[in-house]
Amino acid sequence: VADPLSVLVQLLAKLPGVGEKTATRLAFHILKAPPSYAQELARAVVDVKERLRPCSVCFHLTEQDPCAFCSDPRRDSALLCVVALPQDLMAIERTGSYRGRYHVLHGVLSPLDGIGPDELRIQPLLERLGRGEIKEVILATSPNVEGDATALYLAGLIKPLGIRATRIASGVPIGGELEYADGVTLNRAFESRRDL
Amino acid sequence: VADPLSVLVQLLAKLPGVGEKTATRLAFHILKAPPSYAQELARAVVDVKERLRPCSVCFHLTEQDPCAFCSDPRRDSALLCVVALPQDLMAIERTGSYRGRYHVLHGVLSPLDGIGPDELRIQPLLERLGRGEIKEVILATSPNVEGDATALYLAGLIKPLGIRATRIASGVPIGGELEYADGVTLNRAFESRRDL
Repeated sequence: VADPLSVLVQLLAKLPGVGEKTATRLAFHILKAPPSYAQELARAVVDVKERLRPCSVCFHLTEQDPCAFCSDPRRDSALLCVVALPQDLMAIERTGSYRGRYHVLHGVLSPLDGIGPDELRIQPLLERLGRGEIKEVILATSPNVEGDATALYLAGLIKPLGIRATRIASGVPIGGELEYADGVTLNRAFESRRDL
Repeated sequence: VADPLSVLVQLLAKLPGVGEKTATRLAFHILKAPPSYAQELARAVVDVKERLRPCSVCFHLTEQDPCAFCSDPRRDSALLCVVALPQDLMAIERTGSYRGRYHVLHGVLSPLDGIGPDELRIQPLLERLGRGEIKEVILATSPNVEGDATALYLAGLIKPLGIRATRIASGVPIGGELEYADGVTLNRAFESRRDL
């Protein structure tokens, strides 16, 4: 018979980056928090599994369809940011500075894993672009081999439509030390140098 | 209208040591895990709040009373380990090497915070000791000012009963570097040196 505390610790310890010590600390925090917190957390955990569906327009995970980003009239419909995953969209939203629309591919091209164009939400992207409202597509996949290949592939489909395809910049992170930047990043920072 | 994902991220971000980035990573892990995981986690979160009560013998938090430690016939009833908090008990249990009983004080003496002997589970401890079964009490409060004071206070109550009172050892952690040990720890390690 497992006691509720051990059960919670074991379940929390399955989360990424959470070991048994951290899980114990989290469990005791939940135990000591106001009763409403545990109730809300339990509901939220179930809700993300049961109530989230892909938005029929941008494929971000959402409860309402179209999602809040697609239905917000204050966002710029001429600007579209393409990301690999919903968490990438959320990282961009946290900056608070992007005010265009989004499109979530739900992955990147990865032939070795059997992920080709048909496995990603590329066909619906082309349909959106065909409606003529979008003037620029910002390809915001991660700056690694697969993210770069996916961006390059999409640019090849987007530019013939007369739509601008741009790529987010890569280089030494702001606030980072040049000394500790890896060689590939440093090379990219040099190649992408700009006139001042 | 807050979407379920943002709600979960906000709630997870209230946990100690969890910022918004980590909360997002945890939320997506929950989102991608098997449906049973979210259900079990939600239930466990509610269960720790609703089903745990202090054991009537040792005051560890438990669903069954007496708790699993107090009712396990294989544990040594002559040996009692006194800890400040349930999480201390769990840290000791993780080592798997202690096979005696426990007593949880639910705090340490802290006059400045208004915590005196009556605020801790000291009276029930003395009643347990009065039954004559316990031969040694290991005082396993943390090696800091309040933990030391609490251990010293308890030793003063225990020894007149003809029961052995011992204190867990302090010193440089195993695997730790002497170079990086703090001065107080290093002093304690020297004071507590043993013949080899």
